[in-house]
Amino acid sequence: MKLTILGCYSATPRTFTNPTSQVLEIRNHLFLIDCGEGTQVQLRKYKVKFTRIKHIFISHLHGDHFFGLPGLISTFRLLGRESELHIYGPKGIKEAVTLFLKLGDSWTNYPLIFHELNSKESELIFEDEKVSVYTVPLRHRIYTNGFLFKEKPLPRTLNVEMVAKHKIDRNQFGTIKNGADGITQEGVVVPNLELTTDPPKAKSYAFCSDTAYNEAIVPIIKKTDILYHESTFLETESNLCEKTKHSTAKQAGEIAEKAEVGQLILGHYSSRYKSLDLFKEEAMQVFPKVELAEDGKSFEF
Amino acid sequence: MKLTILGCYSATPRTFTNPTSQVLEIRNHLFLIDCGEGTQVQLRKYKVKFTRIKHIFISHLHGDHFFGLPGLISTFRLLGRESELHIYGPKGIKEAVTLFLKLGDSWTNYPLIFHELNSKESELIFEDEKVSVYTVPLRHRIYTNGFLFKEKPLPRTLNVEMVAKHKIDRNQFGTIKNGADGITQEGVVVPNLELTTDPPKAKSYAFCSDTAYNEAIVPIIKKTDILYHESTFLETESNLCEKTKHSTAKQAGEIAEKAEVGQLILGHYSSRYKSLDLFKEEAMQVFPKVELAEDGKSFEF
Repeated sequence: MKLTILGCYSATPRTFTNPTSQVLEIRNHLFLIDCGEGTQVQLRKYKVKFTRIKHIFISHLHGDHFFGLPGLISTFRLLGRESELHIYGPKGIKEAVTLFLKLGDSWTNYPLIFHELNSKESELIFEDEKVSVYTVPLRHRIYTNGFLFKEKPLPRTLNVEMVAKHKIDRNQFGTIKNGADGITQEGVVVPNLELTTDPPKAKSYAFCSDTAYNEAIVPIIKKTDILYHESTFLETESNLCEKTKHSTAKQAGEIAEKAEVGQLILGHYSSRYKSLDLFKEEAMQVFPKVELAEDGKSFEF
Repeated sequence: MKLTILGCYSATPRTFTNPTSQVLEIRNHLFLIDCGEGTQVQLRKYKVKFTRIKHIFISHLHGDHFFGLPGLISTFRLLGRESELHIYGPKGIKEAVTLFLKLGDSWTNYPLIFHELNSKESELIFEDEKVSVYTVPLRHRIYTNGFLFKEKPLPRTLNVEMVAKHKIDRNQFGTIKNGADGITQEGVVVPNLELTTDPPKAKSYAFCSDTAYNEAIVPIIKKTDILYHESTFLETESNLCEKTKHSTAKQAGEIAEKAEVGQLILGHYSSRYKSLDLFKEEAMQVFPKVELAEDGKSFEF
């Protein structure tokens, strides 16, 4: 699993910082999460292959998470894309994108499939044999979802030496990988644990931005390996959180601690702060494993 | 008059090139012309004061001329703007911007005034005591206007020495600047040409992008000082012009020559070309005074 931060600053873009967008590589999927203005240029800068993006998840319809979407969709068209593009986002996103395409008489020649969200409960919005994606309802000024990406457990790993030693027939491999015992040519049962080893652990990633402090998300993201949680402010500006429905770094740490996640990544920093170090220090007061998102930074899990 | 090119490349943005946007400084106005994605970042990069932008002119509603507008409007709001913003553009622009603001529940707290255009004839769309702005109907895939910016003639310049010599009373200065003769204290008439010199010439700038070759614009932009005319292609790709409704560099030169403009600036280059020199060479085959637009380049007239 690899997460690339294309942008992790809040609201007003500056010359050298970008609004929210991330690319999550998970079991060969390349998911784009949020799409602030300029995302398509960031995708090029970090050499993300446009054709690999088949699913885009939009948390909410504030400009710094969404205004790059019409441009990206148009560019896909100009590049001759033919494959489906699925867009998951709040109700209204289809009308908005469609209006922009209509005004430009620039309909896509590839299928554009919208999955509009309006539930206030966590729901499964994508699933295949490798990955499932759930919404994480957040508490922001407008309807907003975070997203929980979960790898599905992999089949057990065949112990090639042991399988050879017991001369187990190849046609049993599928069931053995799924946990069944093996049977030798003489009819002797060999326990699964002798023939396989544990597969790599299925990992999970939760993206939670933008949101005020919201303990209601804790059960949804419980024991998630990696949590990206917004930290627009430091505690010195905590008075701004309730009005703007954002969190402090300390609050992000508290959610990470309560949810017992493996690691916390902070982001969505207000541009008022000169240095990011204070964000990390503040969150680490309540949770030990904290990383700072930065534009262009990649995390491999 | 000063023109700053924020972006001058066509369609798909690349890492180091930007879609169309320009800033025209004319008689203390700061007009923004077109607003492709990323324009607000370009404005910051070239240190254009956001508060000085009071009028935005949008040629047409293709993404590379327009998708930066919702973000710029939102940023103005975040920066606490209070003064009016006037937006001139094709019918539909108000609905598009309004929908984006509505979805984000991000209404501006400053007056946002739309001037929607749908005439197929050139029309006066802005005028004050210093400047007038006319549309230049272009021939593109969707409804598109260029814009002609004309300085109004300045009052004549008072020849301070001559005025003093003739002891002309100060209360005549206004009428003399407007062309009247002066009258000495003895009642002698002094011809205006003795008391004044010609003011700096009123200049004009025409922005014509995007458009196929269109001689119908020649009378509108006749003898304009500076013409920015798109040149998406070279003659080697002229077969693409009719379908895409774009021009070659040579065609831009032909329009410049027929309109007897003072200078031609080329732009809106297709990203298929590695070097821009060929554009200049091609246009110069038919018109001598050619400059190349480049992102970040300024022209002072």
